Amino acid sequence: MRKPNNKSDKYHLMAIELVNKMTLEEKASQLKYNSPSIERLGINDYNWWNESLHGIARSGTATMFPQAIGLSATFDTELLYRVADAISTEARAKYNQSVKYNDRGIYKGLTMWSPNINIFRDPRWGRGQETYGECPYLTSNLALAYINGLQGDKEILKVAGTAKHFACHSGPESIRHSFNAQVSLKDMNETYLPSFETLVKKGKVESVMGAYNRINGEAACASKYLINKLSEWNFDGYFVSDCWAIRDFHTSHNLTTTIEESAALALKHRCDCNCGDSYEHLVLAYEQGLIEENDITESAKRLIRTRARLGMFDEYCEYDSIGYEVVSCDKHKNLSLESAQKSMVLLKNNGLLPLNKNVIKSIAVIGPNANSIDALRGNYYGNADEYITFLDGIRNEFNGRVYYSQGCHLFKDSIQPLGEINDGISEALTVASLSEVVILCLGLDATIEGEEGDTGNAFASGDKTDLLLPKSQRTLVKRILEMNKPTIIVLAAGSSLNPLGELADSIIQAWYPGQMGGKALADIIFGKISPSGKLPVTFYEKSEKLPEFTDYSMINRTYRYLEGNVLYPFGFGLTYSNVKLSDLYFDKSTLSGSFNIKNEGNYNIDEVLQIYIKNESSTFAVKNYSLCWFKRVNIMIEEELKVDFSLSVESLSVVNDNGLREYNNDIYSLFVGVSQPDELSLLLSGVKSLSTRFEVSLNIM
Amino acid sequence: MRKPNNKSDKYHLMAIELVNKMTLEEKASQLKYNSPSIERLGINDYNWWNESLHGIARSGTATMFPQAIGLSATFDTELLYRVADAISTEARAKYNQSVKYNDRGIYKGLTMWSPNINIFRDPRWGRGQETYGECPYLTSNLALAYINGLQGDKEILKVAGTAKHFACHSGPESIRHSFNAQVSLKDMNETYLPSFETLVKKGKVESVMGAYNRINGEAACASKYLINKLSEWNFDGYFVSDCWAIRDFHTSHNLTTTIEESAALALKHRCDCNCGDSYEHLVLAYEQGLIEENDITESAKRLIRTRARLGMFDEYCEYDSIGYEVVSCDKHKNLSLESAQKSMVLLKNNGLLPLNKNVIKSIAVIGPNANSIDALRGNYYGNADEYITFLDGIRNEFNGRVYYSQGCHLFKDSIQPLGEINDGISEALTVASLSEVVILCLGLDATIEGEEGDTGNAFASGDKTDLLLPKSQRTLVKRILEMNKPTIIVLAAGSSLNPLGELADSIIQAWYPGQMGGKALADIIFGKISPSGKLPVTFYEKSEKLPEFTDYSMINRTYRYLEGNVLYPFGFGLTYSNVKLSDLYFDKSTLSGSFNIKNEGNYNIDEVLQIYIKNESSTFAVKNYSLCWFKRVNIMIEEELKVDFSLSVESLSVVNDNGLREYNNDIYSLFVGVSQPDELSLLLSGVKSLSTRFEVSLNIM
Repeated sequence: MRKPNNKSDKYHLMAIELVNKMTLEEKASQLKYNSPSIERLGINDYNWWNESLHGIARSGTATMFPQAIGLSATFDTELLYRVADAISTEARAKYNQSVKYNDRGIYKGLTMWSPNINIFRDPRWGRGQETYGECPYLTSNLALAYINGLQGDKEILKVAGTAKHFACHSGPESIRHSFNAQVSLKDMNETYLPSFETLVKKGKVESVMGAYNRINGEAACASKYLINKLSEWNFDGYFVSDCWAIRDFHTSHNLTTTIEESAALALKHRCDCNCGDSYEHLVLAYEQGLIEENDITESAKRLIRTRARLGMFDEYCEYDSIGYEVVSCDKHKNLSLESAQKSMVLLKNNGLLPLNKNVIKSIAVIGPNANSIDALRGNYYGNADEYITFLDGIRNEFNGRVYYSQGCHLFKDSIQPLGEINDGISEALTVASLSEVVILCLGLDATIEGEEGDTGNAFASGDKTDLLLPKSQRTLVKRILEMNKPTIIVLAAGSSLNPLGELADSIIQAWYPGQMGGKALADIIFGKISPSGKLPVTFYEKSEKLPEFTDYSMINRTYRYLEGNVLYPFGFGLTYSNVKLSDLYFDKSTLSGSFNIKNEGNYNIDEVLQIYIKNESSTFAVKNYSLCWFKRVNIMIEEELKVDFSLSVESLSVVNDNGLREYNNDIYSLFVGVSQPDELSLLLSGVKSLSTRFEVSLNIM
Repeated sequence: MRKPNNKSDKYHLMAIELVNKMTLEEKASQLKYNSPSIERLGINDYNWWNESLHGIARSGTATMFPQAIGLSATFDTELLYRVADAISTEARAKYNQSVKYNDRGIYKGLTMWSPNINIFRDPRWGRGQETYGECPYLTSNLALAYINGLQGDKEILKVAGTAKHFACHSGPESIRHSFNAQVSLKDMNETYLPSFETLVKKGKVESVMGAYNRINGEAACASKYLINKLSEWNFDGYFVSDCWAIRDFHTSHNLTTTIEESAALALKHRCDCNCGDSYEHLVLAYEQGLIEENDITESAKRLIRTRARLGMFDEYCEYDSIGYEVVSCDKHKNLSLESAQKSMVLLKNNGLLPLNKNVIKSIAVIGPNANSIDALRGNYYGNADEYITFLDGIRNEFNGRVYYSQGCHLFKDSIQPLGEINDGISEALTVASLSEVVILCLGLDATIEGEEGDTGNAFASGDKTDLLLPKSQRTLVKRILEMNKPTIIVLAAGSSLNPLGELADSIIQAWYPGQMGGKALADIIFGKISPSGKLPVTFYEKSEKLPEFTDYSMINRTYRYLEGNVLYPFGFGLTYSNVKLSDLYFDKSTLSGSFNIKNEGNYNIDEVLQIYIKNESSTFAVKNYSLCWFKRVNIMIEEELKVDFSLSVESLSVVNDNGLREYNNDIYSLFVGVSQPDELSLLLSGVKSLSTRFEVSLNIM
């Protein structure tokens, strides 16, 4: 982890010195995301907006890793660190070249507005794909690893990361500019804020971005409650508004009546940087007496300090020597492949997988996502210099005949504008009937699952209206499965879907697996590696049983609070092998222990070990249980490993109705397994798990 | 060539018998492109619309060959035959499967509305890419080979081809629904009609499609002049309107006032089939006394006859056994590769090409068409099951480091919607500076060069406004060439462009080279094969020197009539070797002769031998000269071949001002070479050519 800066560090002093030389107008100008140069002070123009969610995005060539939700499915903090390290290395390489050509435009800087650590509260949210899923513990740990990789471990920031969107931001997209999320203090502190707290306190994240919506009446970018939280956590970076969010104060939230008032309201709540145009009115707001010069000065200092911490005012910094050859280099592409391999989740397998490519003579690869580059990238993506679609991957790996049929449009009734409804079906049936095995590549892409204003918005502004595949694909699935061919369903999507795959032999959730996704899929399908991803979100059975999309209460949402409606549970994912757990030992005085895992199957695998904790006595306990530890291990055939674990004391705490964390004397059950506790996992996979029960006294507070 | 049908053949009689059993309403219904079934007569519903320009289009998976203009650049009739044969084989295979699933929708039938044999009169025309270029002789010969491959050599039609758009149809796209082409009888018969005459008389083409525009006041789909031509040529198939062209009669041509009048006007001029909805009003037109039952009957007979000729009413036809495994099979993909290899035209080479991949360590592949699938396909395309972009092809073939940069948007000022102007340039300059060689992949695609209503229409409804690259690319070219790196420009486009490549070392015109285009390019760049394509259109220097786009006079258009303004001439294209021609012999009594060609260079090559004829004495002679013979030959290093040729007597004829072809006693010059006659080719390539002068008496008429 990066060495923490403190208030007296040299970059802080450098910022004070520079800002003290600025006029009021100059200081105000530095608060815009597209800040102009101040030549007499040696300050270049700088555009604060850059993106790095799963690779440098929107800025030309870069290695494209799996979309964030897929990275999360790896349950692999060490991998997340390496991915983020590769991303920040490419960012520095690109930055070093851009400034050489004096190109300081948008998406060219070192301030990344990633990751998105919102809790994936509702499976219909189009931007859920950008998150690490529905579990605060998983999100916190993966995001922390990502931020550490991004920001580096030196005194100089490698790049600056951003925890966004602060807070309680998870749709609906269509009303995000006017929406008021009603959130209880308990849900806020138990579910929505922990990942932000972790990134600020443990990750020293350099930036926090405010959300579009209001929370309990306050704009997220001007919230006393939220800004107090940041102070409490000793946040030491800059706060930035989501893009054009401050304008929403008067245009859609009706919190203010003029743009000056909106700018003032944000600045008064420590919103240092404005993505948008509201802060172009800061000087006018000052002249109208809505803000004081000191408000501007303090924000300018924080922003200039971030730039100083990035080495921008140093003669030389150690990252200046990173050469461009690292961009999209083989090492990074291989890391993208490894990430994709570890991200894919085997949801169902009746034994068809892995395929023996030496025996099978013909495969039909069918579906709108079979040969789709969009299905590899999700949203917030860069330009990969090589894409391996699912079809490409299978063809490259398989020597027999591969038949391809698009089968249907991703969501339209016909492939051809003038075509009849289901105009691709007869071809799909033809190639299926000619083949020994069918691989049906379905799902979504960012044209129908994504961000408001950023997508084709075929459905609800990027959100899903239900958990089903689009109608065109439902027809395709039904017709193909009715043939009773050996069939594998591959889903590319950033969220929970129910593919109605009861008749399918195997189902693989591939997420949006990045530029090498097709190779990763083929490696899994042909058994070069075993699948090892786990669901970072619950796959629900029916959208009808979900709470209202606009309801921010956690009741009946996510594995911690749900009441049935589960198709595949959080944490679930099959491998090609079979492990047995044994010898659970737990010392409640140190909150640590160990257990054994043995690979009793016929494949070398990675397995993700998971421990869930259930508070059996507190009235403030979450309804079900919470993930409190996880670890990905590699285990060979016949191998037996002893695995040590230790729990954080926070795992045993509860959040009361005032939103305060309590550490009490309670009774707990601990569940150790490769999925959720038995009652769920046994239903689905037959894998074993262990449990223990203990009582601990934790009167820490 | 297919055995000619005649009026008394069994399919003709079958059609008469079937139609005689139909009611008036049933007969009228069969004239619609989406004709319904008549169950009691065993007639299935049938959609007449299908497309096969460079592979089965709009109908799912199919092998994608180079766009037509690229196929033309091969100057290879034998290849065109094989390509069309592969296409019709795939068409039959797909049809056999579709009917099995009772899928008789649009783009599923056996009546192909291809090829487009219009003369590429003006380089700004967006649909020029669909044609075989500007030369009636070249177009006629290539289209004839294509039709023979499409229609097959059996009594049963393999598929039915269409000569379109009859006639004098070559833009502007934006006004095609109201435009009246003013065409002299001489130009009509000397330039615009010969390819149609060839396909009807020699190719027995089963269908002719009328154009959208008017010609000298008459609608092309209801023209006495044109229909008389078809009669004169003994046209024996069905005539179809371009899609919704009959509706234009009253909505934009103002030839009629009601849809019934439009339908009647077309039917009265032997327009058998209506793509559109006008013929839904045929019965009403009949009831209004605008047409007689016999008009409907005759068209119905011709249409049913075509279906009969396709074997649709036979118990079994020999093409029914074509299995689906031929679709997109390796053999066809290899044929697509061969076509692409033979289509690319080396326009300039100062010796940089071919690259020695064992010596070079790094290559920058830059440009909006470098990693573009759209740049491979042009318009009227199907779904390939594998695409090899230029970048893919180079990366697959080259073991050193390949750097990629998009460089700029295809035509927009910035790549990113919020990006600064030229936001891709600094990255392009970076990768260029890191590399030993730069391959700059530029040009157009069907989003800015294509058909009205079919494209993004960024510019003039699919037409180009000038001959320059879009501004975004001009900036990129300029900045890269200023670096003085060894640079190859690769142009993907369906038409003449001036890339302003004076400072480039090499320029390759790649057309839209089909699914394997990137491999073909790499094979040429790394010298696995020599380039061998020739320009089927003049590459003009400046659009300012062109006649008005709406001017259909041939004065100063195409190599036969032009007066300067040449960047690269028709017929031009370099190889990696050097040939010498000698020993021209010509016997004017038989119009045949021979010459020798020797490969004096260091590469085994294909070379395209060309003979041009100039009538030196007739007042009706074309201004310059005309191609009258061509042949592609393979010639090894040091090899010398004797090449025989014979000219058709038509080559010596002239067309008088009344549009009549005359065979007179004239003096001719004959030019034999590997490009146009010396005065042009010497300027550009230094290749040798031969010429002879003779007088022939041809009082045939």
